[in-house]
Amino acid sequence: VPKVIDHDERRAYIMDVTLSLIRSGGFANASMRDIAAAAGFANGSLKHYFSSKDAIIKATWERELGKQSDFVTAAVQGKRGMAALRALTVTTLPLTPEGAVAGRVLLSFWDVSMANEALYNSYHQHLTSWRELICEFLSQGREDGEVLALRSNDEIADEIILLNIGAVMITQIGPETSPAKWHLRHLERLLDRLGHADG
Amino acid sequence: VPKVIDHDERRAYIMDVTLSLIRSGGFANASMRDIAAAAGFANGSLKHYFSSKDAIIKATWERELGKQSDFVTAAVQGKRGMAALRALTVTTLPLTPEGAVAGRVLLSFWDVSMANEALYNSYHQHLTSWRELICEFLSQGREDGEVLALRSNDEIADEIILLNIGAVMITQIGPETSPAKWHLRHLERLLDRLGHADG
Repeated sequence: VPKVIDHDERRAYIMDVTLSLIRSGGFANASMRDIAAAAGFANGSLKHYFSSKDAIIKATWERELGKQSDFVTAAVQGKRGMAALRALTVTTLPLTPEGAVAGRVLLSFWDVSMANEALYNSYHQHLTSWRELICEFLSQGREDGEVLALRSNDEIADEIILLNIGAVMITQIGPETSPAKWHLRHLERLLDRLGHADG
Repeated sequence: VPKVIDHDERRAYIMDVTLSLIRSGGFANASMRDIAAAAGFANGSLKHYFSSKDAIIKATWERELGKQSDFVTAAVQGKRGMAALRALTVTTLPLTPEGAVAGRVLLSFWDVSMANEALYNSYHQHLTSWRELICEFLSQGREDGEVLALRSNDEIADEIILLNIGAVMITQIGPETSPAKWHLRHLERLLDRLGHADG
């Protein structure tokens, strides 16, 4: 049914336009009117594809989080334990220009999610899966004798997540004095320590 | 000259109102009109105190960063080396409800600063001072034989800043599964390691 395909394609196109507006100026830049104008649509016609600005924002956010999850799934494919944990944690650091752009979008959505429960819950679910995946790889690492750290998996996962989020943010707010190679080094030192009791 | 005092007091009051709007809904909630309404001013009369919304935002941001600096200065007063570094780094972790509220404001300003060079530069200056202060305390710690880590002060400072920023953010976007006591533990472990060559 070509009409349905066209509908989905247009929804995807509207999300692309929304993302590019957010990248260039944040949510202040992305009213329904702005999105319609940038997409070349008449103002009212967005309603055929999304019921509201909130609906566009939520769909765009969930698509971004889904892409991030797919990216991680591909990186850890066929790996377990520390090899999987290394792949996961390196993949989610903002080491490339694309990673930096993704961080820009995260920052805007995080801000808006403070006053938008649906967005907040979507990210919370994403955060929970991320944490569970880290804990799963740590458990495998313990089974395989790679992880000897005495503190809990949850506490280790928390430190990894804080380091990652710190790197995502500093890449936006102060990249001039905080090179990506250092972020990678902080991470590698953290991972290397896991082979020791005090790691 | 009482009129001048009144003028400064009103500017401070407008900044307070702006902050409370940002805390409850971010910048989407803080147009000139919203600020005027929440402050109980006629719409046009804000112009007597600030030339534009950008001027309010910038003054409010710089006042917040100034408060943060004063807070740090008080915490490190009379200390040097590792004692100063501990005081500084613990003080800037969001361990209290007030710290969490300050993080909410930071998140909104960071987002807006992505498309506002004046705000970006204000934070950048703040970040530079913060980093320099950490490096100064590390140097004192080396003089006093407390810091034996072989990596550079800049690299250590970077890890401290990433951990701090990660904690500030997670306190906004996922505090349910990331208790402040863990943030403090991550920090203490990092600081304790500085007494070792591989720290």
